[in-house]
Amino acid sequence: VPLRHGYTGGPARAFRLGAAGLAEFPIARWGDLARRRWDSAGPAALDYGVVAGYAPLRTAIARYLAVSRSVRCEPDQVLIVNGTQQALDLIARVLLNPGEQAWLEDPGYDGARGALVAAGARVVPVPVDHEGLDVAAGVRRAPRAKLAYVTPAHQFPLGSTMSLPRRLDLLRWAHKARAWLIEDDYDGEFRYVNRPLASLQGLDTAGCVIYTGTFSKALFPALRLGYLVVPAALIQTFIKVRFFLDVHTPTFMQTVLADFITEGHFERHLLRTRIRCRERREALRAGLQRDLGGLLEVESSEGGMHVLAWLPEHVSDREAARRAAAEGIDTLPLSAFAQTRLSRGALVLGYAGLTPDDIASGTKRLARALHPLRRQVRGRRRDPRPSSPGPREP
Amino acid sequence: VPLRHGYTGGPARAFRLGAAGLAEFPIARWGDLARRRWDSAGPAALDYGVVAGYAPLRTAIARYLAVSRSVRCEPDQVLIVNGTQQALDLIARVLLNPGEQAWLEDPGYDGARGALVAAGARVVPVPVDHEGLDVAAGVRRAPRAKLAYVTPAHQFPLGSTMSLPRRLDLLRWAHKARAWLIEDDYDGEFRYVNRPLASLQGLDTAGCVIYTGTFSKALFPALRLGYLVVPAALIQTFIKVRFFLDVHTPTFMQTVLADFITEGHFERHLLRTRIRCRERREALRAGLQRDLGGLLEVESSEGGMHVLAWLPEHVSDREAARRAAAEGIDTLPLSAFAQTRLSRGALVLGYAGLTPDDIASGTKRLARALHPLRRQVRGRRRDPRPSSPGPREP
Repeated sequence: VPLRHGYTGGPARAFRLGAAGLAEFPIARWGDLARRRWDSAGPAALDYGVVAGYAPLRTAIARYLAVSRSVRCEPDQVLIVNGTQQALDLIARVLLNPGEQAWLEDPGYDGARGALVAAGARVVPVPVDHEGLDVAAGVRRAPRAKLAYVTPAHQFPLGSTMSLPRRLDLLRWAHKARAWLIEDDYDGEFRYVNRPLASLQGLDTAGCVIYTGTFSKALFPALRLGYLVVPAALIQTFIKVRFFLDVHTPTFMQTVLADFITEGHFERHLLRTRIRCRERREALRAGLQRDLGGLLEVESSEGGMHVLAWLPEHVSDREAARRAAAEGIDTLPLSAFAQTRLSRGALVLGYAGLTPDDIASGTKRLARALHPLRRQVRGRRRDPRPSSPGPREP
Repeated sequence: VPLRHGYTGGPARAFRLGAAGLAEFPIARWGDLARRRWDSAGPAALDYGVVAGYAPLRTAIARYLAVSRSVRCEPDQVLIVNGTQQALDLIARVLLNPGEQAWLEDPGYDGARGALVAAGARVVPVPVDHEGLDVAAGVRRAPRAKLAYVTPAHQFPLGSTMSLPRRLDLLRWAHKARAWLIEDDYDGEFRYVNRPLASLQGLDTAGCVIYTGTFSKALFPALRLGYLVVPAALIQTFIKVRFFLDVHTPTFMQTVLADFITEGHFERHLLRTRIRCRERREALRAGLQRDLGGLLEVESSEGGMHVLAWLPEHVSDREAARRAAAEGIDTLPLSAFAQTRLSRGALVLGYAGLTPDDIASGTKRLARALHPLRRQVRGRRRDPRPSSPGPREP
């Protein structure tokens, strides 16, 4: 099973997916907060904690999500988990019986696929385009699916934002089919154009959306902290099943994070990181245009921490990724996230952890690595088949 | 689903199960080590870590287990997990297909039962006695089971140590049936008579034992850190499946724990804690004899962090636990851990976190709470049925 979505390990380098600027994280500040917590810790802080999570952290997250993502919830609907992957595993185990159908974006996040398959689900690939998940196609293929997994803020890996009509269609279908929707808002904090869109959860009046987010992107992945927002009717079931996964998330970092948020450090860090990410994104787009124009075509996107760059037709994205790797450049081929064949390949390029200099030298090296592919393109020019800009509608 | 095995939350009180002396844990020392780690942390420490765990911690655990538990393994067979419950969940998911049979000690740990059931196993209760799991009974009931869960060092909750002949029988069966054995060594560090027994894993020559241990008992539960030792042939599969659970255990506390072990603090803490636990165990046995003699009969046991006290026949352990709770005393009824009816009830009493004074006042209050049951016993004296000292062989 391939391991993706940011997980490659090793230091930040062009163009691996990763967190936003670990080099700029205020480690000293975090260390001070941790020290303060240790200095005041008594035996109770060492004992088993609350399965649902540290209460002040749940309250802080509920407030933050209400303001920044229009999520509507009470603090007791917020459950602390060890990051998005555990959220997905928990959701799949609570909501799915073996053999039930689950919609998955195609191309889509393979961590979600892993969690669904492990729970015994029959995964139904549903195509995505520039408006996000193609709800009508999902309804045609599996009208009675039990669950749908979506990344509406910034589709992984295409980068599209799900349109309002699609969101409303999806909620309508879920309500009618009595299906659950997983909204994975893995990088929803990172949006650079217009105002942030409301979450899907904020539009849900029927209580069918389970919302999940992570601190791996905005803070740091080693923290292993994320959260779920579950409909009130499901809270107790989620807590019971979570106990049998691993009892609860380690307490100590939850208390430090609660302090980090309530004392305003999170908001400040996020603001700085968002500005930095936007600059890096522009640097990458400019570098790709300068060094790889005519070969790579950058997909437009309103946010996130990676860009998608289309290759010409007939050029294999796996071959491109292999050639890049041989030059020391990390990329992920789009086809690795596809469940059905794509008509056109692309490369997923992360930039959030890279300085503008890293990015500039990265695009130069990538251009060198992919140069031989330009010949393939020229050789193919006589091919009469029409081009199609996105993943194939199977 | 009931949640047990130490998980009740709240401050240490008579006689809840729990960690050994959180009040005596060297918090300041731990805080210093944590501070040192934060002071020297660079961006790499914040990034995704290794799924299998922090390498120096795996090495430290392999060394510790070799010396103290006769576990035979290389560091790369040690996988870091978020405590025993995650270890059990991971094992069940890797090794069991839905519908396959798994032996479970009866009475036994319901956290293990939860993990097995969640993986779709058909749980086969196998009786335990003063020699541990009755292997012959297991073979009669489910000779082709895929897996057996055992607590050989200190059976939970009866407290018996599995005898050497039974261990060898169990290994022989597993080898022949191509079954896996889970050895849950949850409190194997705590042994007060004779020399510690070798682990079952140390006797295994066929690579069929998966060994698991935790730092929740010897250090503190809020840490959420435990480990698995897996046969070499299974390492890669375990790592892959672990990724889809929650990627990896948070890095930072792993680094602090590695320092705590390699700099000798763990060994010293364990030594002190073991002496303290033995004193507390003697205080509890003496208190039960003094205040509840004739009503409760303490099962002999060579280690662990709880005692089992048998009630007279015909006295319901659930009623006894309810009466104790009404006096503010936490106990767990043995029948809550039984999958088949017991002929005699008992109470599970924790003591590891209690001072001798807490214990003395606790047994007095327990005596007051259970006093009305003495009448039931006198009323039953004419009952001609023979008494049986252990759980019923169904």
